[in-house]
Amino acid sequence: MNDPIIEVTLSPALFHLSDVSDKIVVVIDVFRATSTIASILENRADAVIPVDDVEKSKSFEGADIILAAERNGEKPEGFLYGNSPFDYPPDVVEDKTVVFTTTNGTKAIEMASGNCLAIVTGSFPNLSSICFWLEQQKKDVHLFCAGWKDQFSLEDTLFAGALIDCLKEQFQISGDAAFAAHAMYQSAHMDLQAFAKQSSHYKRLSKLGIEKDMVYCLTPDTCRAIPYYHDGKLTAVYPE
Amino acid sequence: MNDPIIEVTLSPALFHLSDVSDKIVVVIDVFRATSTIASILENRADAVIPVDDVEKSKSFEGADIILAAERNGEKPEGFLYGNSPFDYPPDVVEDKTVVFTTTNGTKAIEMASGNCLAIVTGSFPNLSSICFWLEQQKKDVHLFCAGWKDQFSLEDTLFAGALIDCLKEQFQISGDAAFAAHAMYQSAHMDLQAFAKQSSHYKRLSKLGIEKDMVYCLTPDTCRAIPYYHDGKLTAVYPE
Repeated sequence: MNDPIIEVTLSPALFHLSDVSDKIVVVIDVFRATSTIASILENRADAVIPVDDVEKSKSFEGADIILAAERNGEKPEGFLYGNSPFDYPPDVVEDKTVVFTTTNGTKAIEMASGNCLAIVTGSFPNLSSICFWLEQQKKDVHLFCAGWKDQFSLEDTLFAGALIDCLKEQFQISGDAAFAAHAMYQSAHMDLQAFAKQSSHYKRLSKLGIEKDMVYCLTPDTCRAIPYYHDGKLTAVYPE
Repeated sequence: MNDPIIEVTLSPALFHLSDVSDKIVVVIDVFRATSTIASILENRADAVIPVDDVEKSKSFEGADIILAAERNGEKPEGFLYGNSPFDYPPDVVEDKTVVFTTTNGTKAIEMASGNCLAIVTGSFPNLSSICFWLEQQKKDVHLFCAGWKDQFSLEDTLFAGALIDCLKEQFQISGDAAFAAHAMYQSAHMDLQAFAKQSSHYKRLSKLGIEKDMVYCLTPDTCRAIPYYHDGKLTAVYPE
């Protein structure tokens, strides 16, 4: 039997060119949605419900519900919780459900849902965990970089390259974008922080004074939880 | 005065996200349109007329006209000349006008025309020449990778990275795609041929038995001519 393949979409504007049926889609939004979602589940929230619209998220109510939103890197008015992984320590999220809307990450989850085998989200905080898990599944994998408003994003592609680097012995690298992401990672991996500082989104978020978030989002292996999307919700799965 | 910027679009499907007004657009289609166009002009053709449609090209007639076309890597029926740089030695093209339609390259020229400062085409055969010329212009530069049917292409991005590497002292690298292309080139430049062999388009064209073309298309600095687009035609310009 051939090894399963691993391939990459570099922007939501290119996602329609790929056939993801029978593949596991890994949605990647390094700054910061998928990093933050991993932390929320790591800190024992019951679930994260991604929604694509700030107004829609307000229709969720209840003592166990936390409403969280981010637009253009900031919390919209009326929201106490945003897109920072530090907004969600265990005493805030344990046994709660976080309804979460972000600029790019939740849109990508929405786009992938419906026509693939499974959706998980990936980020540096859960890099090794998701690698082990993907190895165990023995299915084709499609890495979907959420980007920034359809633009190509350096940090999402960097993570795709990191994941390919972990999985290259067990998977066949497939397609130009996957080879490019891997080559870029090989050139950058000695100093991920310095490399990612070149990205437009890093510069955009730095202006908001949240460098601590960015360091967190580029640090591998602080979480084991893998957000797994099913029935409109992300819940934690773990490698066996 | 700040240095001019150099930026990259990775696929025609992402080109609408960029503002190219007041910029020089370099259209890149390494396998093989922009490599072949450079050779045609190097071999002293008067001009190359890029057209986006095989039927449209047939409306050009005359003793000094050569009709050339490529679709999906091959010559369509009824065409003597295709997309190989070896189809156009000096005794074939000198003082002639080549009407040229290809799958991706001519479409990208069409897309860029109308709203930028100037359009030239770039390829490894004229790498150093185009670098010198761009340095002399002192204008912002937008590298437009023609890709393959809207897909990201490894070899076009590799050339974008090579151009950025030549120009990085005189230009500001701008945007995530430009940093990515440059990092990829840095990781690949010790053996361009081996790296490019990973590309889907290389594999596609190898099946057609034209490896000699591919070697040519990845070999820097065999041409000085820079195809410059004006009034519907590409003619040769040279660095001063």
